[in-house]
Amino acid sequence: MTDLEEAIALVRADVARLHSELVRYGLVVWTGGNVSGRVPGADLFVIKPSGVSYDDLAPENMILCDLDGTVVPGSPGSDRSPSSDTAAHAYVYRNMPEVGGVVHTHSTYAVAWAARGEEIPCVITGMADEFGGPIPVGPFAIIGDDSIGRGIVETLSGHRSRAVLMQNHGPFTIGVSAKDAVKAAVMCEDAARSVHIAREAGPLIPIPQDKIDALYNRYQNVYGQSSDDRRDDAEDAR
Amino acid sequence: MTDLEEAIALVRADVARLHSELVRYGLVVWTGGNVSGRVPGADLFVIKPSGVSYDDLAPENMILCDLDGTVVPGSPGSDRSPSSDTAAHAYVYRNMPEVGGVVHTHSTYAVAWAARGEEIPCVITGMADEFGGPIPVGPFAIIGDDSIGRGIVETLSGHRSRAVLMQNHGPFTIGVSAKDAVKAAVMCEDAARSVHIAREAGPLIPIPQDKIDALYNRYQNVYGQSSDDRRDDAEDAR
Amino acid sequence: MTDLEEAIALVRADVARLHSELVRYGLVVWTGGNVSGRVPGADLFVIKPSGVSYDDLAPENMILCDLDGTVVPGSPGSDRSPSSDTAAHAYVYRNMPEVGGVVHTHSTYAVAWAARGEEIPCVITGMADEFGGPIPVGPFAIIGDDSIGRGIVETLSGHRSRAVLMQNHGPFTIGVSAKDAVKAAVMCEDAARSVHIAREAGPLIPIPQDKIDALYNRYQNVYGQSSDDRRDDAEDAR
Amino acid sequence: MTDLEEAIALVRADVARLHSELVRYGLVVWTGGNVSGRVPGADLFVIKPSGVSYDDLAPENMILCDLDGTVVPGSPGSDRSPSSDTAAHAYVYRNMPEVGGVVHTHSTYAVAWAARGEEIPCVITGMADEFGGPIPVGPFAIIGDDSIGRGIVETLSGHRSRAVLMQNHGPFTIGVSAKDAVKAAVMCEDAARSVHIAREAGPLIPIPQDKIDALYNRYQNVYGQSSDDRRDDAEDAR
Repeated sequence: MTDLEEAIALVRADVARLHSELVRYGLVVWTGGNVSGRVPGADLFVIKPSGVSYDDLAPENMILCDLDGTVVPGSPGSDRSPSSDTAAHAYVYRNMPEVGGVVHTHSTYAVAWAARGEEIPCVITGMADEFGGPIPVGPFAIIGDDSIGRGIVETLSGHRSRAVLMQNHGPFTIGVSAKDAVKAAVMCEDAARSVHIAREAGPLIPIPQDKIDALYNRYQNVYGQSSDDRRDDAEDAR
Repeated sequence: MTDLEEAIALVRADVARLHSELVRYGLVVWTGGNVSGRVPGADLFVIKPSGVSYDDLAPENMILCDLDGTVVPGSPGSDRSPSSDTAAHAYVYRNMPEVGGVVHTHSTYAVAWAARGEEIPCVITGMADEFGGPIPVGPFAIIGDDSIGRGIVETLSGHRSRAVLMQNHGPFTIGVSAKDAVKAAVMCEDAARSVHIAREAGPLIPIPQDKIDALYNRYQNVYGQSSDDRRDDAEDAR
Repeated sequence: MTDLEEAIALVRADVARLHSELVRYGLVVWTGGNVSGRVPGADLFVIKPSGVSYDDLAPENMILCDLDGTVVPGSPGSDRSPSSDTAAHAYVYRNMPEVGGVVHTHSTYAVAWAARGEEIPCVITGMADEFGGPIPVGPFAIIGDDSIGRGIVETLSGHRSRAVLMQNHGPFTIGVSAKDAVKAAVMCEDAARSVHIAREAGPLIPIPQDKIDALYNRYQNVYGQSSDDRRDDAEDAR
Repeated sequence: MTDLEEAIALVRADVARLHSELVRYGLVVWTGGNVSGRVPGADLFVIKPSGVSYDDLAPENMILCDLDGTVVPGSPGSDRSPSSDTAAHAYVYRNMPEVGGVVHTHSTYAVAWAARGEEIPCVITGMADEFGGPIPVGPFAIIGDDSIGRGIVETLSGHRSRAVLMQNHGPFTIGVSAKDAVKAAVMCEDAARSVHIAREAGPLIPIPQDKIDALYNRYQNVYGQSSDDRRDDAEDAR
């Protein structure tokens, strides 16, 4: 096995396994969500096949694509179609070289904010830690061209948040690895739910911007078992 | 085993197994929901027995009925009563020959819209994909004659939606196969929940009709592992 | 083993096992709920021990009490204290001879109606089937004398509903058997949740009284695998 | 094994195991919550490592700290960082000698009250039993100095409640043992959810103070399998 083959095998295993986290945290129903991961050191990424049950996902039926979203001919799983969101994932990998993983779900509370086109305000410290401010809304865009990918990239470039709520659609999240993007999807739904429920019962207390900054900087730099947990995650995927 | 016996055996297995999806997605409590599937090539369908725990469902205790909803004498399971909703299922099979499966649940959020007699507006792309527009409300009707079945057929005939919210009662869904109808039940509750929660917090952004049409047409024609995933599902049931 | 010993052993097994249904349907947290069952043909009932984890319940640690709620000395489990709600259960068995099982939970939505002292209106057919009308509220009463038991009996005597929402406290349900009372607890929470969520979004459509009557009469008489499913359940407990 | 080593081993096992209760009751997502337990008879406590999945927690990777929150050098797990909330736990142990366990979560409904800075009113008997009145709010404080620990101690000292909602952050709970603090975390979220949902639909009926007092006194003194269940729990941890 070459180094590249080994790298691909690791990402296939990781991407297949990480879909079970979407199920565990209730972010998806039926086949409606997808995880992808970039192959380190290559212009390739691995993504879920389209319309296949989460129970049936395995490393060997994950699909290997180039950065245009074209399935690599002859690779394992290449007899199937990749996720119908593949073009959006590919656009992100082409345009955000720092991104190692992308996740899309229709998780309930994040979809609710998206259906109103309303960003999630940063009123809980867990959001400040994870997203460093509000979770923004991206444009209305439908499948068929580059518009979803472009909307994700334009909204998240230069933004602290690793999550975007695509209007009337649902959340896309990015990360330094597939695992990091899955974590962002889990925390995005958690924030969407907590802030929704909080606001149902009365006005929310804002967190001063300098406190948000302090929380975000600490969490990104010192949390976890090394000086950069998210870089660790990226290591895991290698 | 004749071809017909084999076809019946496959539908029995499918219908018994699919009830576990209702449990998995939290659409039912106790014994309150039912799945049926048409036997391809015969004027027969298979349905759940009445008042039996989901833990105890098995292919051999599913009940075989003709299209009048009469239990086929001497068939396995015929010593039990079929679901009390059997007449409604039978009416649908008699009057909608393209239907291969029917599902009924009392799933929480769908029931909530039904108790207000309010259709679910199509404000999220996942609904446009799956239902091609709003999920309609059917008439108030109670068990005892054909009125439930007639209400389902009149509401769904010529409608894109595979789900109807029977007023004060709950959702019925149809599909080209039992699995497709179960998928519709899962996606109906998901839509009912997401749109309910979205609207609790403010006005929703409508999706333009031409975008709804584009999403629906794409999803029905190109999503999944073949040109018609739903026809595939029907194949599965054969 | 005498007939009485055998009857006690069956009720012990039934009551221990039925607590897992409270867990399965999310009606209880920690140790906060209890099921009891009358021993057929004797002035005895079996109830959960106090403050014991649901994971540790077994037939032999269930507690046998007389109809005053006194633990039967020397019986298995009699070294432990019975549920702190034992006096309320005992009061019901003393005063409602037709009752074969009693259940108490703090299930979320039922507690919410109880904290407002508001009965649950019968606006969904599933409630009409199961409860034959609204689920009533009982008086505010606290542990220490007969007041909880008396409140349950006074509210439910002559009422179709097998569930009562004790004000500021939570639901108590009764049935012809322990299983039937557990079913009532499950359906009570389901009704409490569905009607709460329905009403959040607008006015509810009432069901005409004659339709409620028709649904209730049908369900009590013809639903299930015999002419009286609930009597069947009572048989199961024997 | 010395007595101290044995005591530490028991607390390690208890703290590792108790995290699974946070998962079971849905109080945590990803790695966002932590349990600690004091080592009886020593100025030491055991806490979760930082940023480690709940699936991977085991007695040997729990971390032993002194009451300043410093990891005991050379002890099992000391190659890892302790929970980023360790300073807050340590502050509580230093200043509240009666406390044997501390828990922190971001459970949804408790966070919602915290984001509004609103205490949870005591309108259900289960809260009166467990907390003896409202669940109070603590000050806004962020990680980096003693302010979280100080806020917990100042709010809970002399208060019946074992739970405090730290503003914009989430609940911290204390107990005579780690298990007792976990129970408080479970019951705090249950109360936060039930009262939130109750109040969505209309005004709540208050419980008279003398009834709250009576419920609290009974529950603290006679509930469970001994005259003091919570002291029992502390025994369990020894």
